[in-house]
Amino acid sequence: MDEPKFHLIGHFKLSADATKVKEDVAKLIFKSNEDILRKGAPSGKGAKVINWDLDKNAIMVEIVSDRYVRAHDALIRLRKVLAALLGKNHIGIRGIGIEDFTIQMPSEEPLKKNIPFVKEMRYEDGKILLALDVDEQQIENKVPDRIISLISEKVESSKYGKKEHWELLGQSKKKIHKFKEDPTKELTKRRWIKHGAGRGQWVFGPQVTRVFRAFGEVIEEEIIRPLGYNEMMFPKMVPWDVWKRSGHAKGIYPEMYYVCPPKTRDPEYWEEVTDYYKVTQEVPLDLIKERIDYPIGGMCYAQCPPFWVFLQGETLPDDIFPIFLYDRSGTSHRYESGGIHGIERVDEFNRTDLIWIGTQDQVIEHSKKLQERYQHLFDDILDIQWRNAWVTPWFMAQEGLTGLAETREVGTIDYEAYMPYKKDWLEFQNLSVNGSKYPEGFNVKLQSGEKLWSGCSGIGMERWGAAFFAQKGLDVDNWPNKFRKKVGELPEVFRFL
Amino acid sequence: MDEPKFHLIGHFKLSADATKVKEDVAKLIFKSNEDILRKGAPSGKGAKVINWDLDKNAIMVEIVSDRYVRAHDALIRLRKVLAALLGKNHIGIRGIGIEDFTIQMPSEEPLKKNIPFVKEMRYEDGKILLALDVDEQQIENKVPDRIISLISEKVESSKYGKKEHWELLGQSKKKIHKFKEDPTKELTKRRWIKHGAGRGQWVFGPQVTRVFRAFGEVIEEEIIRPLGYNEMMFPKMVPWDVWKRSGHAKGIYPEMYYVCPPKTRDPEYWEEVTDYYKVTQEVPLDLIKERIDYPIGGMCYAQCPPFWVFLQGETLPDDIFPIFLYDRSGTSHRYESGGIHGIERVDEFNRTDLIWIGTQDQVIEHSKKLQERYQHLFDDILDIQWRNAWVTPWFMAQEGLTGLAETREVGTIDYEAYMPYKKDWLEFQNLSVNGSKYPEGFNVKLQSGEKLWSGCSGIGMERWGAAFFAQKGLDVDNWPNKFRKKVGELPEVFRFL
Repeated sequence: MDEPKFHLIGHFKLSADATKVKEDVAKLIFKSNEDILRKGAPSGKGAKVINWDLDKNAIMVEIVSDRYVRAHDALIRLRKVLAALLGKNHIGIRGIGIEDFTIQMPSEEPLKKNIPFVKEMRYEDGKILLALDVDEQQIENKVPDRIISLISEKVESSKYGKKEHWELLGQSKKKIHKFKEDPTKELTKRRWIKHGAGRGQWVFGPQVTRVFRAFGEVIEEEIIRPLGYNEMMFPKMVPWDVWKRSGHAKGIYPEMYYVCPPKTRDPEYWEEVTDYYKVTQEVPLDLIKERIDYPIGGMCYAQCPPFWVFLQGETLPDDIFPIFLYDRSGTSHRYESGGIHGIERVDEFNRTDLIWIGTQDQVIEHSKKLQERYQHLFDDILDIQWRNAWVTPWFMAQEGLTGLAETREVGTIDYEAYMPYKKDWLEFQNLSVNGSKYPEGFNVKLQSGEKLWSGCSGIGMERWGAAFFAQKGLDVDNWPNKFRKKVGELPEVFRFL
Repeated sequence: MDEPKFHLIGHFKLSADATKVKEDVAKLIFKSNEDILRKGAPSGKGAKVINWDLDKNAIMVEIVSDRYVRAHDALIRLRKVLAALLGKNHIGIRGIGIEDFTIQMPSEEPLKKNIPFVKEMRYEDGKILLALDVDEQQIENKVPDRIISLISEKVESSKYGKKEHWELLGQSKKKIHKFKEDPTKELTKRRWIKHGAGRGQWVFGPQVTRVFRAFGEVIEEEIIRPLGYNEMMFPKMVPWDVWKRSGHAKGIYPEMYYVCPPKTRDPEYWEEVTDYYKVTQEVPLDLIKERIDYPIGGMCYAQCPPFWVFLQGETLPDDIFPIFLYDRSGTSHRYESGGIHGIERVDEFNRTDLIWIGTQDQVIEHSKKLQERYQHLFDDILDIQWRNAWVTPWFMAQEGLTGLAETREVGTIDYEAYMPYKKDWLEFQNLSVNGSKYPEGFNVKLQSGEKLWSGCSGIGMERWGAAFFAQKGLDVDNWPNKFRKKVGELPEVFRFL
């Protein structure tokens, strides 16, 4: 969908009557059509003022353009040179008005969507015709450019669908699985877990917690210590600013748990609510809704974005890299689709998140090392049947995008475990090279000027548990020896009647 | 404020004309005034029907009473015996109407508050006069009783104020503190911590995380292992039902971080929001507010309430008790007052929560053991100057109550550390015997019928850190030997330009 065409009618508001300099303006516009409105564009391309007029305190212009110098950018370029000319005559430009702004985008099919700041959209002769409703501020903020990107994205998506990329990379040997039950059912029956009071939420009893901690010890011994990871603690309430920088603000709205603070902490402001509860023992949701503020963000979704605040705005010496960090200080929360099932697909989960940061080479090299460690861990310690695949990068998926990153070095590997009870595979962890996305989003730089890259890998306890229990069952005697030793004696704390 | 007086005029709606049994009704009401309306009350006390009438399909009654058989309870008692009498004549009671319900409560002073279901409140001759606006459902749900409790509570509170109880129990030796700085300032200066993007929220770098983990190891060696604690993982998103059972629904509204789910996970429903963001790079809070649901609860506040779901509704064998459990799987969040300061008073914090459950004797005995372990830990390992005090129980404070529990066995001990930089004390952890509150709230029973009790103790990493760094500073050479060994080498990961 190349070659959109732009047509804009607008005017510059002046601080005084400029009639006396009309001739100079004419010359300037004639000259601009030859130079600044073509600057940077290939020969014969660019923007052009096809009509103009000066009426006392206003200069009206009509501009047509291609994608090389978009009409609204041409308008801003014109303002600059006009301001210089008028300034000499003590006349200022007070603002810009847009009377009419239309864009033509070639497209094989129409797009039936409402787009912000688009007051009209038609489809004619293989073109989408847009009439924009934007003002000076929005032009300055590049709103028209983003409208074009958004429409391209939507046309692509309706053409190619939302299917995620998936390409097998490798797989373990097949294994014989004695256990063939749904692990959640067995865990529940044995009272090792119980469903929490909330959606997709579990309380983990002492036995499962012991197994999760053994996973943690394996991670520590096989990854954290040998690869030189250091622990940090990342915040778990994530404000909008973090998600704006990480890119999540583009797409996670349907899956977030939103967090709203009280409008004030004054107990008197809340007295009606507490009184109503004390008298009825019912929580008065309508009274509460009036008293809470706009959401300030959400509960932890992807774990690593809030880390980057620690480095935000910094320039760092090259020799401290590569750096390896991890966090396991709290839960993540996602409003999952109808497919929530047992501990396999939950709304609340416990994850250890690994982050590595360095130059492009350092980050790619470490990704390979980490893949080797995981392979060893799954083959030799957990002894599970697994495979991995090259997929749509998690940060693209979470921004609502499909396909793959632009370069083959950047992307996500999903690890999947075979689930004998349903003869299907379950994604149980991932590993990603995120390119320079996060350092750029949070404005973190290398002293040398070389680009900083990063990678991350999320290890979900519930997913590891689901995979392990599904293949190995709940009887420790059937667990692989090395892991069984790590677990030790399972604590038997409760007995139910 | 004893001896309230009740006056109620109401009627029973009948399914048919009952004129023919008027005489029987007369006899029944006369008899009721002698027996069921006095049952359970001291001699000469109780409720009395002082006036009544039967008009075809309705029986009107006027009842006066004292606090022993409250007028609205008398009405329910009457319904029962009337229903039996009328039933014999194939007449049913279809419902109850309340024409007028007033309560007199002696009080030294007026109360200037709006109370739910109170349509009028006056103060006359040392009495608060209430006119209630309640229906049958609300009488069944004991709304009038709770209105009386609420008013008593408010009168007490305005009389005695909101001052928390505080009574010194013990204290360590005084120490000489070389370090006299605000620990947060020093930690920030050394780049060991950085303020997060949210209110009262910190990102903890590798050095502080190492110290927090060393606290964890000390807790494990001195408390968890010797006292036989087992780890569990409690959910961190807390739905209303949990807080209704734990009592928190009575009072934490001004301090909660509320959690709202999306109304639906359908991406099309959210397309306007994502499009707006993509085009403007601003999060459209108004569009979001329309698309999120009522709050379903809040972020973890007190840590142990969601555990009780694991045992909810169970009857358990006596011989598995006492049971010792802990959770350290995530963060807690409170909308703190203006006094948020550094890592001392934060909105988001990391806590290890200990719970012990058993008979009254077991729980009280363990509380003493735990106090001994803490004393040893603070004196011999962390070597800090501390004191502890008997205070308003945390669960009462969090329900908006003051004073102390009814029995001396139930209550909270606050531990405070001296903060040399401000010559003041900081509460850095607590220890509570909660009586039978939680087992009762979540309906957990002992097989023997004996009452189940519980206790809990919250160990906040940020508070321990604030206390330790404030007294010992940030130079490991000045740290007590035993703890320094636990910490080992502090990881030096970052260097900033």
